[in-house]
Amino acid sequence: MNGKLLRGHTVFFNNAPRIISTSSVAGPKECAGIIGEYVETALSDDMYGESTFEKAECKMLSNVIDGAIKNGGFKREEIDVLFSGDLLNQIISASFAARDFDIPFLGVYSACSTMSESMLLASSMVNAGYCHRAVAATGSHFASAERQYRYPLEQGTTRPPQAQWTVTGAGACLISDNGDGVKIVNGTMGKVVDFGVTDVNNMGAAMAPACADTLIRHFRDTETSPEDYDLILSGDLGALGSRILKDLTWEKGFDISEKHVDCGEIIYKVIEDEFQGGSGAGCSAVVLNSYILTKMKLGQYKRVLFAATGALLSTVSSGQGESIPCISHAVQLEV
Amino acid sequence: MNGKLLRGHTVFFNNAPRIISTSSVAGPKECAGIIGEYVETALSDDMYGESTFEKAECKMLSNVIDGAIKNGGFKREEIDVLFSGDLLNQIISASFAARDFDIPFLGVYSACSTMSESMLLASSMVNAGYCHRAVAATGSHFASAERQYRYPLEQGTTRPPQAQWTVTGAGACLISDNGDGVKIVNGTMGKVVDFGVTDVNNMGAAMAPACADTLIRHFRDTETSPEDYDLILSGDLGALGSRILKDLTWEKGFDISEKHVDCGEIIYKVIEDEFQGGSGAGCSAVVLNSYILTKMKLGQYKRVLFAATGALLSTVSSGQGESIPCISHAVQLEV
Repeated sequence: MNGKLLRGHTVFFNNAPRIISTSSVAGPKECAGIIGEYVETALSDDMYGESTFEKAECKMLSNVIDGAIKNGGFKREEIDVLFSGDLLNQIISASFAARDFDIPFLGVYSACSTMSESMLLASSMVNAGYCHRAVAATGSHFASAERQYRYPLEQGTTRPPQAQWTVTGAGACLISDNGDGVKIVNGTMGKVVDFGVTDVNNMGAAMAPACADTLIRHFRDTETSPEDYDLILSGDLGALGSRILKDLTWEKGFDISEKHVDCGEIIYKVIEDEFQGGSGAGCSAVVLNSYILTKMKLGQYKRVLFAATGALLSTVSSGQGESIPCISHAVQLEV
Repeated sequence: MNGKLLRGHTVFFNNAPRIISTSSVAGPKECAGIIGEYVETALSDDMYGESTFEKAECKMLSNVIDGAIKNGGFKREEIDVLFSGDLLNQIISASFAARDFDIPFLGVYSACSTMSESMLLASSMVNAGYCHRAVAATGSHFASAERQYRYPLEQGTTRPPQAQWTVTGAGACLISDNGDGVKIVNGTMGKVVDFGVTDVNNMGAAMAPACADTLIRHFRDTETSPEDYDLILSGDLGALGSRILKDLTWEKGFDISEKHVDCGEIIYKVIEDEFQGGSGAGCSAVVLNSYILTKMKLGQYKRVLFAATGALLSTVSSGQGESIPCISHAVQLEV
């Protein structure tokens, strides 16, 4: 790189902000899969002792924000800013979680791409010297998402085969201007991409073009290719969406098939109910902040491109006949 | 200032990012008031030629983003990033507006504090050299907000005297690393403050403590006092909230009464229906990006502290018995 902090739509962090600690929590269904042994707090009950799904979701988020701060050896008052958002209307999980902390709060929304947007912004602030330590966090809950976006669980609606399963879980990381940890070397800002998909049960197909757009711009801006990464990690495209992503990038001359892993595709043991795999803001947040960052710390992955993916629809927009605009923000992580 | 970019929770912009252009649009009711002659696009019909309120809101936002870019003499491809959010579930106005532009989009949510949060983040990115030009934008629509947060208009529900009226309008500004314009010299990040107010019709009372908290931290971080400003501009506290704000800051030793103006209090000619005045993300966005910034360019105000205010509730959180957490982000503007 030639010292410029912006090339194309990628922001370069020359002061190497780093992830000095993480925290994660996930529900029993999620912990039955590959991430089970890596998650910090494995819930035995996805109500988490609360009276509503939404309060359980908020408690998970609060828990991981607190966990990331403590795991980094810091007190709350030593944290300069919290970047967080979630899937619920008016991002109430994040806002109510932030109420528990006496920390400045910058709310973000990019649906299931919230983890990477938060990390990109937190790294931007830390790298620029605006703050020393920033927390990036998000989460989701299967039951609160189902009843907000689709149908009440009590209705027992049949799920179509292209559907995904919203992850019950949350993840957070503490990004600092010094200390040991995985470095965030740059971030590629996502654009809203809409290929005209209107099926709200087929998020993977809707989001894949946005992810492809961001990955391709990232490769060009950073003058890298898929071979330069140990892992290209998308957020929650699921099985079908991942196939579409590989096709779309291949068409543009980038063969990611050997390096690509999707958080939604790996989070569950594949059984009938989940169909295409996991989704939700918590999906990539949990997988990144437990499994992936542990593997990176162990040196098993040295360079990871993390591109969480978000579908920016609402029940109102779908009801008014709109298609699903999507976005994907990416951050490049290095040991 | 001693060269440090962070003091307390205030970020200092030493490279003077500046507002080189603005754009604003407002409905007929809004344009009947003080801002009428300053608004760029005055609507004669608040449907704006669209079939739904939500689409009209999105069109307003799209219009001001486009307007700010054109008024600055730039093309869309010369803009590095758009920061935007709005009040609708999943910030669909911002996301769908962003779909019209081939510009990276970082979605934010802080309810009616979105204008100042977007400006703070856009200034942070421009000041750090991550980008040359960033747009900050938000808006709201009376009818879409009413039916989402309260009741369908068709129901004709009686409004209580502590209620405010959500502004139909949008505002945007283009923040650049060079050119002529009002400088953004620093920004104070808000914290979530909740004084236990549960009346969803009394947003002013709920938000005033968050605004007071941010103003006081701002004065301390910047070693300034109310006398140092020509104007201390809150977002949408309305008449009652403004009285509470003055009391709360006075109790802490800062008498803002001579300098304080609330966008919600001044936007409408006071008639019976609006009660406490205007509210909504569009309220401060329109007032700032039309009336206030015009006056600053004319040299009538030289130093303005702009603290938009947001209530971070949702219908779900209120329905589950929660009180209203609030936030206020502030940016200091200078000619």
